[in-house]
Amino acid sequence: MGPHPAVAAIRLAVRRVLHDVLTDLTDRPAGHSPNPSGGTSTAAASTLPLVLVACSGGADSMALASALAFEAPKLGIRAGGITVDHGLQAGSDLRAAEVVTRMTALRLDPVESVAVRVGRDGGPEAAARDARYGALDEAADRLGAAAVLLGHTRDDQAETVLLGLARGSGIRSLSGMAEVSGGPGRSHRYRRPFLHIDRQTARKACMVQSLPVWDDPHNIDPAYTRSRLRHEGLPALEKALGKGVVEALARTAQLSRDDADALDSWAAEAEAGVRDEDGKLECAKLYALPPAVRRRVLRRAVVAAGSPAGSLFARHIEEVDRLITGWRGQGAINLPGRVEAQRQGGRLVIRQG
Amino acid sequence: MGPHPAVAAIRLAVRRVLHDVLTDLTDRPAGHSPNPSGGTSTAAASTLPLVLVACSGGADSMALASALAFEAPKLGIRAGGITVDHGLQAGSDLRAAEVVTRMTALRLDPVESVAVRVGRDGGPEAAARDARYGALDEAADRLGAAAVLLGHTRDDQAETVLLGLARGSGIRSLSGMAEVSGGPGRSHRYRRPFLHIDRQTARKACMVQSLPVWDDPHNIDPAYTRSRLRHEGLPALEKALGKGVVEALARTAQLSRDDADALDSWAAEAEAGVRDEDGKLECAKLYALPPAVRRRVLRRAVVAAGSPAGSLFARHIEEVDRLITGWRGQGAINLPGRVEAQRQGGRLVIRQG
Repeated sequence: MGPHPAVAAIRLAVRRVLHDVLTDLTDRPAGHSPNPSGGTSTAAASTLPLVLVACSGGADSMALASALAFEAPKLGIRAGGITVDHGLQAGSDLRAAEVVTRMTALRLDPVESVAVRVGRDGGPEAAARDARYGALDEAADRLGAAAVLLGHTRDDQAETVLLGLARGSGIRSLSGMAEVSGGPGRSHRYRRPFLHIDRQTARKACMVQSLPVWDDPHNIDPAYTRSRLRHEGLPALEKALGKGVVEALARTAQLSRDDADALDSWAAEAEAGVRDEDGKLECAKLYALPPAVRRRVLRRAVVAAGSPAGSLFARHIEEVDRLITGWRGQGAINLPGRVEAQRQGGRLVIRQG
Repeated sequence: MGPHPAVAAIRLAVRRVLHDVLTDLTDRPAGHSPNPSGGTSTAAASTLPLVLVACSGGADSMALASALAFEAPKLGIRAGGITVDHGLQAGSDLRAAEVVTRMTALRLDPVESVAVRVGRDGGPEAAARDARYGALDEAADRLGAAAVLLGHTRDDQAETVLLGLARGSGIRSLSGMAEVSGGPGRSHRYRRPFLHIDRQTARKACMVQSLPVWDDPHNIDPAYTRSRLRHEGLPALEKALGKGVVEALARTAQLSRDDADALDSWAAEAEAGVRDEDGKLECAKLYALPPAVRRRVLRRAVVAAGSPAGSLFARHIEEVDRLITGWRGQGAINLPGRVEAQRQGGRLVIRQG
């Protein structure tokens, strides 16, 4: 008799990702070689690639940890775990210590708890996320990990798409979380094996494996947008639209990501073709581009001139676009980061003031 | 003292669209010339272009009718109105007659009630919509109307985007309703002046103009998906994500539409380049395309082979795509409309069986 279907599902998802990690290591060994100076394992073990799981002690990441612990040794991979103590509630350090115990019980090695200080930039959720990824990056570098697995499920993906939808800033913000991502020079570090697994399956897998789990208090705190979405917004949407909403949102993420990538590549290519010999943007050539491509070219140019991408909204680009499509002699347009855009003699001049 | 801001807003929206209609008439007079044989007006009046409003008697379309009645004469346009009797409730004919009276009181001329038989294809909402547009098309042809105005608001647009999202079939289904649309050969017939106006403004405009309105019973019938979305789904989403959700969804519609148009044009162009001299699709060339473009090329080819576009889902195209990106000798793939796709000697063969 094989494992419970939920356990089989999470293991299969992890096995696939570990295969990808090994393939990547073969293709590009230099970028991911273990750094023995920071390792805690024996010399023999440290020659094996290390994959870490980021584990909060919640059902999703505990399920992920259990599947990693089961699958990694069969592929000649060391499995370790990191838990991040955000220090946001009293006793969070004790809780982190308990997660370390639970990961150790799964025979993960090395296992670490990393305490972070959460700032305030961008709101509580963004600040916690920044601190968390900073700590994971540091630990992965120090331990020479080939990859860090994250427990985001299809339900998390659906929530992320809705959060992006609420920004109304186009299909890039609908594309949710990537299956593979990472910072500069570490583009394949983070892997999300559970993006096609629903939260219910992860919970079930913990239950049938008798793994103790707890709920992150943030997940049920209505002060958090994502929590409100999870407990009120998404259920209401499912009631109105049917049970397939979560799957549809997750599929939308994947399709939007591919579409956004294709249009970005088109814009990058088109940009070269619409500049004159002095590198200035020619309005007539911009006008001839499809609106979706033109707006991306304009966005690239405004960011290149020094406007911070995060402060640049669709309405800013629309206003610049009207210099091309609705020209009636309007003056310079002020953009975030003290960048100005104006039309001069058939050229678009975008520069920092 | 000018009109109430809500009245000013709806009139401005209609004025802009009427200007567009006149511009279009000047550019392409042949397609939209009035057909005097069906007109009810005097010979002199019938030389003026006619614009119709589709009016249910609800607040949105009554506001639209009032603004059209006010603005059209100033631009040398005749304003008429059509109400469609769907025959779905007892007394719907009396109600349609009452809408005719109300439109006549606004001095619209001609004014008509058109009874339709609603079929069952595609569910109650789709069947009612098909019957309605059929009747509007017929009336517009018969009366020689240059345009038919529809009262869809920004709130309707937001609901349409969420309905599209629930299909999970990509950004085309997120692009909502177009400001300008129409059937074959009538691509500019339907205009939606209120896509940037919220429902509250339309209601307010009716109130301050003392226009009687009623609510379509379908709008509050929880058996209808859109009604559930309006009264439960969207409010819950606003509660979770903030009041800007409707605007964000409407903006998403516009951005998605432009993106989908650009990618469609890319796919149309790419398709020619990936066919060999016999017109067969070359797998190696398909492989080199960005996934978003490749999937659109495949979709075009499958539809061209006879698969009905409405029955063709993202998962079908993904399966065909795996003949290119995940080739392991798999057999022919069955697609809707008895279309088969298979890989043969580096070519993709897609044909009806």
